[in-house]
Amino acid sequence: MRIHIQNHADNIGEPLTMTHWEEAVARAGARPHEVTVGHTMEDYTAAMQHAEALVTGTRGTRALFPVDAPKLKMVFCTSAGLDIVPFDKIQPGVQVMNNSGTHGPKAGEYGIMAILMLANGMPKLATAQQAGKWRRVTGSVLAGRTVTVLGLGSLGGGVAERASQFGLRVIGVRTKAEPHPFCERVVATADLDSVLPETEFLVITLPLTKNTQNIIDRRRLALLPNYAGVVNIGRGPLLDQDALCDMLEAGTLSGAVLDVFVPEPIPDGHRLWTTPNLVITPHVSCDDPITYNSRSFDIFLENVAAFEAGLPLPNHFLPERGY
Amino acid sequence: MRIHIQNHADNIGEPLTMTHWEEAVARAGARPHEVTVGHTMEDYTAAMQHAEALVTGTRGTRALFPVDAPKLKMVFCTSAGLDIVPFDKIQPGVQVMNNSGTHGPKAGEYGIMAILMLANGMPKLATAQQAGKWRRVTGSVLAGRTVTVLGLGSLGGGVAERASQFGLRVIGVRTKAEPHPFCERVVATADLDSVLPETEFLVITLPLTKNTQNIIDRRRLALLPNYAGVVNIGRGPLLDQDALCDMLEAGTLSGAVLDVFVPEPIPDGHRLWTTPNLVITPHVSCDDPITYNSRSFDIFLENVAAFEAGLPLPNHFLPERGY
Repeated sequence: MRIHIQNHADNIGEPLTMTHWEEAVARAGARPHEVTVGHTMEDYTAAMQHAEALVTGTRGTRALFPVDAPKLKMVFCTSAGLDIVPFDKIQPGVQVMNNSGTHGPKAGEYGIMAILMLANGMPKLATAQQAGKWRRVTGSVLAGRTVTVLGLGSLGGGVAERASQFGLRVIGVRTKAEPHPFCERVVATADLDSVLPETEFLVITLPLTKNTQNIIDRRRLALLPNYAGVVNIGRGPLLDQDALCDMLEAGTLSGAVLDVFVPEPIPDGHRLWTTPNLVITPHVSCDDPITYNSRSFDIFLENVAAFEAGLPLPNHFLPERGY
Repeated sequence: MRIHIQNHADNIGEPLTMTHWEEAVARAGARPHEVTVGHTMEDYTAAMQHAEALVTGTRGTRALFPVDAPKLKMVFCTSAGLDIVPFDKIQPGVQVMNNSGTHGPKAGEYGIMAILMLANGMPKLATAQQAGKWRRVTGSVLAGRTVTVLGLGSLGGGVAERASQFGLRVIGVRTKAEPHPFCERVVATADLDSVLPETEFLVITLPLTKNTQNIIDRRRLALLPNYAGVVNIGRGPLLDQDALCDMLEAGTLSGAVLDVFVPEPIPDGHRLWTTPNLVITPHVSCDDPITYNSRSFDIFLENVAAFEAGLPLPNHFLPERGY
């Protein structure tokens, strides 16, 4: 297969290199492909005359399509959430793949870090530290306490796995209430309201779709107990950010650790920067600069192998579904 | 045995109650004792006329001794580190016990939280958040990276256990280089210098003694790589705090998460409050308001059982040794 790997100035993280690629091919025991790596738009348009597959960062896709690519069959984007990809500009018949599976271990570690931070009162302590005040806040161990993981894909699965290692009672929420190996209980999204009053830690890991937009709205936030904390590693618009800020200011939630926002980057002077009991990270929860590109190519090669065997692509992304 | 439980205004945390006591007795299947619970100095001096054992918070001991206590055989303090106990005012022949063992699980959770925070650049991100600036810092998963746990008592053991669950390479440091179940390698304190250059995360969990005072001094901090981070959950004077602040300001260490300081509480306007890439918690890492008193009584009852069986007290504290 002729594969083009395009690095784009708009992409985040380390460039995808031929070294990453060759190491992944060796790991997979894959047969050789004809591979080009490009950095400029000239590299890109030339390579797309022949390429059957494109691998690229997700943010770059906004500038890469439409394109004259007569042989293109598949596009692999290196993010899990493809809500910013211009699907209407990609020619029909081209299968788009996301990078689901790359992020699980890193998301799991960020997720349990965020839960431990909430359990130890770190958002409140950060606010006290900013004020230069010694203010005693204590926390208890996680065992036996309840975390609700909203979304059980690669990210949510990673969080649920780590949470279960700490003896947390894990409630999973997904489209259908099918069991999950690291959840004590799984409920359907339609029953989300029923589990919020018993949720001490709410971890949002969903993709952004028309069905998930604002899923944690002001009404649902108010269903959480006032000692609950919120983590969002999905997408900013899943959550009513203003309602969350209101509740953190009023003390009707104990704290929040957020990695995603509306808008990103958060502008200077934005309300979020001065909201108390809130820990902000700049959309990095699932990125791992050391392992990211290697894992991305491993997953892409699994999809190439499936394609060549005439099987469905494991990472085929359906924009109407949102994952 | 006649046991007096004294709550003192100087103590931190929830009062020790008869309910905690009775639940612990039931868990242990212990035979009944004659127990009194006191809050005032009048309660205390009256009870000590008859008490054979005293259970009390550690800070309170400074006001409780010397005391007229003709039958007193043992004092159980609810801290692990007893560096502030006035041993010279406690009559000879009274065995003092610390609360080693109570803190392991909570210390383990705080320790792995702190390591995850360092791995995710949280101290740097906290500084960026204080400045109201979106500044991208990424981190990698823990597997394969090296943590050095200085001290392998209850606290260090708890941290080593959690660290090993994340695939960290755990180097333990203690008086003698005896193996530890959760350490890949243990070195003697005399060889501490040799492991610092390969240490990415240094977690200090030692008690404070004349041998451990300032053990992590400016010279040893400089042996760490510049991408290393430091955690201290032992005691403030174990670490050259000013040297650490200098290095955080200069960027020759990546970050620190400190729970103990010189002095405590940190005064208003102190340098620590404005040191960059530093996360401060107010000496709470090993406290668990929900489980603390129950676990303390469990450990005390183990010691009472040993005493009644004529065995050495497992928690007998030797001030000259410091644990």
